[in-house]
Amino acid sequence: MAVEPVLVAGAWRNAHAESTFRAENPATGAVLEGDFPVSEWPDCDDALTAAAAAAKELRAVPAEALADFLELYAKKIEENSTALVERAHAETGLPIVPRLRDAELPRTVTQLRQGAAAAREGSWAHAIIDTKANIRSHFAPIGPVVILGPNNFPFAFNGVSGGDMTAVIATGCPVIAKAHPLHPGTSKLLAECAVAALAEAGLPPATVQMLYHIGNQDGLRLVADPRVGATSFTGSRGGGLALKAAADKAGKPIYLEMSSLNPVVLLPGALAERGEQLATELVDSCLAAAGQMCTSPNLILTIAGEDTERLAADLAGMLQKRPPSPLLSAGGLSGLHQSVRALVEAGAEVVTGAERAGGEGYRYKNTLLRVTAAQFLAAPERLQREAFGNATMLVIADDAAQLQQAIAALEGNLTGSVYSSTTGADDGLYTTIAAELRFKVGRLLDDKVPTGVALSPAMDHGGPYPSTGHPGFTAVGIPASLIRFGALQCYDNVRPHRLPAALQDRSPNPAMWRQIDGAWVRG
Amino acid sequence: MAVEPVLVAGAWRNAHAESTFRAENPATGAVLEGDFPVSEWPDCDDALTAAAAAAKELRAVPAEALADFLELYAKKIEENSTALVERAHAETGLPIVPRLRDAELPRTVTQLRQGAAAAREGSWAHAIIDTKANIRSHFAPIGPVVILGPNNFPFAFNGVSGGDMTAVIATGCPVIAKAHPLHPGTSKLLAECAVAALAEAGLPPATVQMLYHIGNQDGLRLVADPRVGATSFTGSRGGGLALKAAADKAGKPIYLEMSSLNPVVLLPGALAERGEQLATELVDSCLAAAGQMCTSPNLILTIAGEDTERLAADLAGMLQKRPPSPLLSAGGLSGLHQSVRALVEAGAEVVTGAERAGGEGYRYKNTLLRVTAAQFLAAPERLQREAFGNATMLVIADDAAQLQQAIAALEGNLTGSVYSSTTGADDGLYTTIAAELRFKVGRLLDDKVPTGVALSPAMDHGGPYPSTGHPGFTAVGIPASLIRFGALQCYDNVRPHRLPAALQDRSPNPAMWRQIDGAWVRG
Repeated sequence: MAVEPVLVAGAWRNAHAESTFRAENPATGAVLEGDFPVSEWPDCDDALTAAAAAAKELRAVPAEALADFLELYAKKIEENSTALVERAHAETGLPIVPRLRDAELPRTVTQLRQGAAAAREGSWAHAIIDTKANIRSHFAPIGPVVILGPNNFPFAFNGVSGGDMTAVIATGCPVIAKAHPLHPGTSKLLAECAVAALAEAGLPPATVQMLYHIGNQDGLRLVADPRVGATSFTGSRGGGLALKAAADKAGKPIYLEMSSLNPVVLLPGALAERGEQLATELVDSCLAAAGQMCTSPNLILTIAGEDTERLAADLAGMLQKRPPSPLLSAGGLSGLHQSVRALVEAGAEVVTGAERAGGEGYRYKNTLLRVTAAQFLAAPERLQREAFGNATMLVIADDAAQLQQAIAALEGNLTGSVYSSTTGADDGLYTTIAAELRFKVGRLLDDKVPTGVALSPAMDHGGPYPSTGHPGFTAVGIPASLIRFGALQCYDNVRPHRLPAALQDRSPNPAMWRQIDGAWVRG
Repeated sequence: MAVEPVLVAGAWRNAHAESTFRAENPATGAVLEGDFPVSEWPDCDDALTAAAAAAKELRAVPAEALADFLELYAKKIEENSTALVERAHAETGLPIVPRLRDAELPRTVTQLRQGAAAAREGSWAHAIIDTKANIRSHFAPIGPVVILGPNNFPFAFNGVSGGDMTAVIATGCPVIAKAHPLHPGTSKLLAECAVAALAEAGLPPATVQMLYHIGNQDGLRLVADPRVGATSFTGSRGGGLALKAAADKAGKPIYLEMSSLNPVVLLPGALAERGEQLATELVDSCLAAAGQMCTSPNLILTIAGEDTERLAADLAGMLQKRPPSPLLSAGGLSGLHQSVRALVEAGAEVVTGAERAGGEGYRYKNTLLRVTAAQFLAAPERLQREAFGNATMLVIADDAAQLQQAIAALEGNLTGSVYSSTTGADDGLYTTIAAELRFKVGRLLDDKVPTGVALSPAMDHGGPYPSTGHPGFTAVGIPASLIRFGALQCYDNVRPHRLPAALQDRSPNPAMWRQIDGAWVRG
């Protein structure tokens, strides 16, 4: 059987590849159709050259055409949704309903359409005009962007169709997507939609390129290449830090989403008031996508007492009762087990689970661990190892002061939730706890699980290191996520007819917000 | 004589220092009064601990108090201007008039007052409210900021009083300033003003701390310390890259302004039309502060011809006629000479200068080098070595195509200027050249020298690597420069009374711009 071609320089062409791989159905272990190439450097090199040329061409392309492309792409994804959902289901084991068909695919096309709207509006570029000094600036496309997508969202975070890709295109940058090797067939179908949409919108064909897989060394070389403008990566901490080191050394911006335990703090009043309801909410959140979400709650912090013991029992009971969903891969299963074992070796007690589950495919028993806050404080680094999957850990403090200490010992996270009494009984403690937690997380939640990252302009899907590489950026939330792919460009005394349209005295676009002499104005 | 104390944890106290240094008058070589300590790690450690505590205290301090401090500080600087200007003149050799008294000191207090206005207004924090999803976000202080200031602006870029310090305080972060060892006495006088202003404004005393000098290893350790929020550095490429590597490895944001040649392109029509005037403008710009400016034009690019030969002769004539100003130090003099020699070894021809000048202090002959664009293209890296001081280099292309190639070979710069005919005769060529130059520079200028960085909200004093570490940030221009010291913080479903005032439905501040459901509104 022929090896699948890669999408380079505007065409599907044979890969420079010495090896191939196949996708697997993680729910059954069955090997799926299609031989996909592991590209060697020449594919990366060609993609970079084509992307650099496309970046130049794109400078002359109106934002309207970018928006048209994003919308056409969304439409084509919808038109091909049956095939997409089927293949993604086979490659990931994620349920078609409610997940792939009813949640992730709609989210993906919504993102694309939000990106189109942002490109049309143009406000993302923060045009600033100082009429007195005749100095003007805005954000312009940073250049070709490499996107290394994660394993856990075959559509919504896919390098060739997800939120990063949407943001990159909306700013006018070309994309080199490295699809995740766990869902190559899905990525192929998506890229086919993209190719058709590019042609229809009249964009340079190399605006979107895709490789299925590359070696680690080529990944490090890719993100540091002089032709690259920036890189976006979503994945493991190990992979992210290696790429960061390579990009940093070359002076190339890299945006990373690496790991997060998403601590959830349950204050005593909330536990007393609605402990069982909280247990259900937490179990739902922990088991969503078998816990393979960036914002899955991996740490639940409480103060010792009867309510906490009841919570532990409730959680354990529910976790035992629910059948474990398949994990994304054999590697994911062994990684999860290794992490759980490492947590146990660091002192965590197994309440339930902590071993491979029976049945077809790659499944792990829904797992609950527990440690005391004293243990946690004694080995904060070892006990903050991410166990990516359907496992979570209770951290039980002796008292409020120790709870606060445990929170102070947290690494940077994407999210942190605090549940408190509805009567105000926890308000004093909330203030202390939230003040501590605030600087450990990007998004602080009240009475809400962290899974479910709304597509809101106010969203922050980012956070302090090591959850990301810089606390000032978000990967979700349009238009804020676009700024990552902008370079600040200033025009000083440039003659009016030479200014970009967005910086001329008369706005070319009545929808665009611009800051003129200190005031935000539109039109 | 007693060693000068350092400003740590709110008090002037004895330094942990094994060695001391003295300032020198670079115009005369005379050693100045005052033994200043080279702090050992314990001083850094104490400053970090105090800064971390101050960062927490500052969260409860209203922006009004930050603004009061910045304004009081500005006032105290003005009240002490005679002593400040005198000491700065002695330590730097920069002229009192027109530079220190009439330009740099006023610039410094203007920055402080602009920072106060930005803190009061609060718009810098980009408050975004999504009322439907009840998600809200804004930028909050990133934590203690280390500022490593440069040698060339004793007031306006001083770590304890300059644009970075202003931006850091305006965001509500504490500052640990490492004063530059070439002007310790000036830094001491400034820090004394700051201490008095802190007390009057009622800010935590450790909001501003200052060390005079530290060893390189302690610098690397400082920027990577867990207690640090971010670092800002202005200086040499070598120093900047070493600090960047240390901070990057620790996952700490670092903003760098490292080196820039600030290419000036003179198109044929402009040269024909006003060649002599351009020569004067360029010489004025090249010799400002003896060329020791971040935006000093180090490269002048033209197309070969009679007008270019006349320009070369005009430049040489003027450079020979003007007396060389003192450089900032013996090290600066030898560094400049080494760089000029390296450029000559790489093929540059000496038109004039290129040797030490006679007279008192550290002076170098005003220097003009020239190379052909063919030479430049053959050794672009060696011929882009920064010669920090009163030296510049003509790069002469055979034709327009080669000029474009030379520009394409440029590294990232802070600025790039293009002079063109006033009649439109150069407009075609301008389009090609500016398109190439645009992506090499942060600020693009028409018919204007790059020196003189206006304090405008639209300013970009930044640029592509290696002029800085990230093309999305500016070091000058309030409020945009503040965003470097902000961490994005999101509130998801947080109960109204727990939200920061700036994110509540009712704005606490009628002056603050907020983005509510997609529209920028005030009040």
